Amino acid sequence: MADIPPKPATSDRPTSRTEAPVNLPARYKREIPEGDSRLRIVCSDCGFINYENPKVVVGAVVREGDRILMCRRAINPRHGFWTLPAGYLELNETTADGARREAWEEARAKIEIDGLIAVYSIPRLSQVQVIYRARFAAPGIEPGPESLEVGLFAWDEIPWNDLAFPSVRWALEHYREVGDAEHFAARTNPPGELGNF
Amino acid sequence: MADIPPKPATSDRPTSRTEAPVNLPARYKREIPEGDSRLRIVCSDCGFINYENPKVVVGAVVREGDRILMCRRAINPRHGFWTLPAGYLELNETTADGARREAWEEARAKIEIDGLIAVYSIPRLSQVQVIYRARFAAPGIEPGPESLEVGLFAWDEIPWNDLAFPSVRWALEHYREVGDAEHFAARTNPPGELGNF
Repeated sequence: MADIPPKPATSDRPTSRTEAPVNLPARYKREIPEGDSRLRIVCSDCGFINYENPKVVVGAVVREGDRILMCRRAINPRHGFWTLPAGYLELNETTADGARREAWEEARAKIEIDGLIAVYSIPRLSQVQVIYRARFAAPGIEPGPESLEVGLFAWDEIPWNDLAFPSVRWALEHYREVGDAEHFAARTNPPGELGNF
Repeated sequence: MADIPPKPATSDRPTSRTEAPVNLPARYKREIPEGDSRLRIVCSDCGFINYENPKVVVGAVVREGDRILMCRRAINPRHGFWTLPAGYLELNETTADGARREAWEEARAKIEIDGLIAVYSIPRLSQVQVIYRARFAAPGIEPGPESLEVGLFAWDEIPWNDLAFPSVRWALEHYREVGDAEHFAARTNPPGELGNF
């Protein structure tokens, strides 16, 4: 699951994070805009306010019989570790469309969503993760460009010691709780867990 | 509910939207980064990639007995129309914390969340709305700086003809469906509705 943190800032790499901009051109000032209560980066030439907000990760637990689709990451962070098909929601996309796109991009899987498993918050990474339950809409999986390999795993075959992120385990366990129930309440972070890794 | 669209671009106002940047300095190019499939704004000096993604709106249907908390907007868009307490999630905030903050900022209400009513997508605005069910954790409401007035409304008193956004009606109707049920499935956009206004 793509809990991709922002790239580390170095002296010659600017970042878009309000907290830690580097090499910010002189016309950009950190200030609290009128009527606001937080520091934003504001352009003193034109008044542009650079609002920065958390990003949405969309993904799915895709199951076939008693097996679940997982992907081994071909990218950092957590290269080589196992995750669910998931990634950042794009502009002008619905969360369900995004989850379907990610299943295709990462595992060449065509999926049909049939429930919302969870909405997780990873505050350190400023992420909201929207995780669906899904079935295959067509047969066949193969690795997309961001996956080293993809596979279908029964519960006892899941590579528990090689999961990429805490929220992968949460989503698997929450899927296990809801199973094939037609109606179920969406889950949130397990008590006290913030998804840090 | 703060479905605030980006400010209209004018010739002297830059925008951060990848689709329609104006007055972009020459070092920024629109290109598809390696391994990506979408146009992003990239700095040719330092390689910085300006990923832009949808924003998250968090809010709540806060009820006391058979009445629901609503706020009349003191800001545009939809100044003077009625909404639920809601607004943009901030960096490093959980969705539940954000919904509690917005209830305080807009209606000086202390709330306790007890369920997830819905996750809506408004693709035209690149918004995901996470709407909770809540109760008052302490008595008292009054308008915050973004509200002209706030009030508690029984179902038949809700100003249906003066709601600010389609998703306000969705959330009210979905709350009406779930009522005080302990467990219920989160809703999504009504069929065929995209939240345009």
